[in-house]
Amino acid sequence: MKVGVIGVGCSKFGTRDVTIQELAFEAVSEALKDADVGQEDIDLSVVGCVGTRGYELMPAVVVNEYCGFTGKGPIRVEAACATGSAAVYSAYSSIKAGIADIAIAIGVEKMTEVDTATSAAIGGRAGNYLWEFHFYGTTFPAYYAMHATAHMAKYGTTERQLALAAVKAHRNAAKNPKAHFQKEITVEDVLNSRMITYPLKLYDCSPISDGASAAILASEKAVKEHGFDPIWIESVGYSSDTSNMTMRENYVGLKATRMAAEMAYKGAKITDPLKSFDIATVHDCFTIAEIMAYEDLGFCKKGEGGKFVENGESDFGGKIPVNTFGGLKAKGHPLGATGVAMVYEAVKQLREEAGSLQVDLKHYRALTHNVGGTGHFAWVFILGR
Amino acid sequence: MKVGVIGVGCSKFGTRDVTIQELAFEAVSEALKDADVGQEDIDLSVVGCVGTRGYELMPAVVVNEYCGFTGKGPIRVEAACATGSAAVYSAYSSIKAGIADIAIAIGVEKMTEVDTATSAAIGGRAGNYLWEFHFYGTTFPAYYAMHATAHMAKYGTTERQLALAAVKAHRNAAKNPKAHFQKEITVEDVLNSRMITYPLKLYDCSPISDGASAAILASEKAVKEHGFDPIWIESVGYSSDTSNMTMRENYVGLKATRMAAEMAYKGAKITDPLKSFDIATVHDCFTIAEIMAYEDLGFCKKGEGGKFVENGESDFGGKIPVNTFGGLKAKGHPLGATGVAMVYEAVKQLREEAGSLQVDLKHYRALTHNVGGTGHFAWVFILGR
Repeated sequence: MKVGVIGVGCSKFGTRDVTIQELAFEAVSEALKDADVGQEDIDLSVVGCVGTRGYELMPAVVVNEYCGFTGKGPIRVEAACATGSAAVYSAYSSIKAGIADIAIAIGVEKMTEVDTATSAAIGGRAGNYLWEFHFYGTTFPAYYAMHATAHMAKYGTTERQLALAAVKAHRNAAKNPKAHFQKEITVEDVLNSRMITYPLKLYDCSPISDGASAAILASEKAVKEHGFDPIWIESVGYSSDTSNMTMRENYVGLKATRMAAEMAYKGAKITDPLKSFDIATVHDCFTIAEIMAYEDLGFCKKGEGGKFVENGESDFGGKIPVNTFGGLKAKGHPLGATGVAMVYEAVKQLREEAGSLQVDLKHYRALTHNVGGTGHFAWVFILGR
Repeated sequence: MKVGVIGVGCSKFGTRDVTIQELAFEAVSEALKDADVGQEDIDLSVVGCVGTRGYELMPAVVVNEYCGFTGKGPIRVEAACATGSAAVYSAYSSIKAGIADIAIAIGVEKMTEVDTATSAAIGGRAGNYLWEFHFYGTTFPAYYAMHATAHMAKYGTTERQLALAAVKAHRNAAKNPKAHFQKEITVEDVLNSRMITYPLKLYDCSPISDGASAAILASEKAVKEHGFDPIWIESVGYSSDTSNMTMRENYVGLKATRMAAEMAYKGAKITDPLKSFDIATVHDCFTIAEIMAYEDLGFCKKGEGGKFVENGESDFGGKIPVNTFGGLKAKGHPLGATGVAMVYEAVKQLREEAGSLQVDLKHYRALTHNVGGTGHFAWVFILGR
């Protein structure tokens, strides 16, 4: 049973003075309108929300009720920063199983709801108190700084190359009215910004954002019956890796990404990603994460990610435009929303509805890549028109 | 694609001085041994854990790593007190979709980990702060007390009938070495126990328990290849209802249960539940919940649940033995574990491995019924040999 995305929606990302259910509804109402369906057409609602220390302890209840999905099948999923992808996956697998005909995946997160101390806790305890907080005491920038220094030491990646990923993200976000940041920055702005953890500076880091995104999925049968014009989900890949950094094989990439990509590429019979995708959305929670993703997803060889961004290969007109809507780095990273917003971006691009951020389509295929924790989880989706 | 349960495990329920991952491993290791598979055979791990205010913010990471599922597909699901069923569902739908061949659903909860105030919060905020806590200020016993008084007023249900459900639960739990409580009680014990919220007394309420349960599911293809001896999941039903009690149609039953049962019965072509199931596990978080479940699941007419238990129809030798292992009421109710433990019980009974709690099999079919919140969510599974 083929499964297609028939409607997408996305809220404005940023600091949002609304409740979690109101935030979700912004995305849901847009997705319903986009698919031209009503709440009564939806069989199953999957809410992706990390919700750590949030105001609503079980966010699926309020989100479902406020969005008009009372009476529908109800699940909340969580996979750390890859929660949105887990939500899309759950809707996808329920349809592919023949259980639901039309399902909605709603990703939502109120990151600004919690106080600073607990926000920090989100950063340093994405799943394993013992390894991540008690033994190491590190927060997320420190983890990715370890990746960055390892990459710099082994491959000569430079702080300037990291900065170029941020500059690209901000340049794209500046044209995306839904992005958290809408201001272009220069390499010098990044290099001169406040040091967070060497070599990562303030502008190497994604922000704390509120946001929601929604995707409505339908079976091939429902597509035919209702005459929807879908973007198909051609393949799904997932994997996980140890949260104990001392047990990782190295720090210059994420094994979970490579495994998830392998599964997704196998499913869609992809042999050369550069000849397969018009765009990719990758998990750039920090600039080094984007550079590692190029390599782990096979866009370039291991160690050449810095040059890939430096040469503009991930920009418009390059070999594969990456994070055309501004990425986690500049569009924002509301944990539960991020993976769904990646599907939103892929669908908008594949439908040629991306306005001033539209890429030229040649392959009519896009990739999304979402990481949970510091590579604890990884999800890759391949979408095609 | 048919999906079968090929192995089950369950920890001792109760106050457990172990970490959440150690608790999960007790159930996982038993399930692996039961199915005669190793961690390497599992494609996907789904962790069901509410985890509200728990020590580990994203419990799937530690549970997966400790149980040896690093590298596998990783999701955590939550559906309030029906979280375990959502976990089984996610494993089931992934296999039915043809994505995973063998998947494990792990339900786990450390209820005693949180302090008293937050334990109370679990009871009163199962999903909607505004309605449940801010407006009404009620905790869970108060909600189910509303159901009980409504049922008593409309149908003449008695406190003694409620007590009989507790007596049956304790009698069964006393023979189940994994149950939290292993002591028989009398109707007088229940009626004389401390009043919690009229008419519910201490012994009308399920306890705060730690516990874990695991179920390994496999595709029909994997069953044939490996020669497993499965209990098949014949059908799944789910639904949800408003968390705003003023908008419920009435208080004498749960609409979500009725809708979920309708979906499950339709899927398995069940017309008369009493002629279809050898046992049922129902969501008896309070004694009144079990009585309402008899009615909402169609074991008797609406209003006759009190008499059903009074006449021994839900006991061994009755029309349909219910909660043979002691139920939430006496076996315990570790939120994430409960729905998986229901599948454990159904599988043990259908395999005739329930020892002194074994029922006589005639239909070779069992039903599980799991409720989230005060009927916010409901799940029904039908399993058959």
